[in-house]
Amino acid sequence: MNIATFYHAGCSVCVSAEQQVLDALDKNRFKIEIVHLGEDKTKIAEAEQAGVRSVPALSLNGSVFHINYGASLEDVKGDE
Amino acid sequence: MNIATFYHAGCSVCVSAEQQVLDALDKNRFKIEIVHLGEDKTKIAEAEQAGVRSVPALSLNGSVFHINYGASLEDVKGDE
Repeated sequence: MNIATFYHAGCSVCVSAEQQVLDALDKNRFKIEIVHLGEDKTKIAEAEQAGVRSVPALSLNGSVFHINYGASLEDVKGDE
Repeated sequence: MNIATFYHAGCSVCVSAEQQVLDALDKNRFKIEIVHLGEDKTKIAEAEQAGVRSVPALSLNGSVFHINYGASLEDVKGDE
């Protein structure tokens, strides 16, 4: 099964991308996971390891695509 | 029918995004169009009107998502 992971942090750019991009993916072929870095900061290190530098980002089987620009991971870390 | 338009200019970042992102889209619900701005410069003005500022970019029913960063439209214009 293919895996699509969408990383976001609740920003408006993220929400818009989440709704429209995830809607367009082929859910018969991709298992979709959503990681909200603003709500679960323990996932930030995992996202960095995966190659995510800003949100929103979409990982397709491990290849990371940064979609538009909401915030850097550094911003998300400091956003208490 | 939903329309997904992928704008690219032949750069390596574009090709990688094209292959992986287009592959993940639901082709039963989206009609996919590919616009190669490097090969057809008459389309650049159309892309700008649509809101494309850099390539690669994916438009989903008119909403433009810039995916990673290959080149600005200005670069594409000057790339003879």
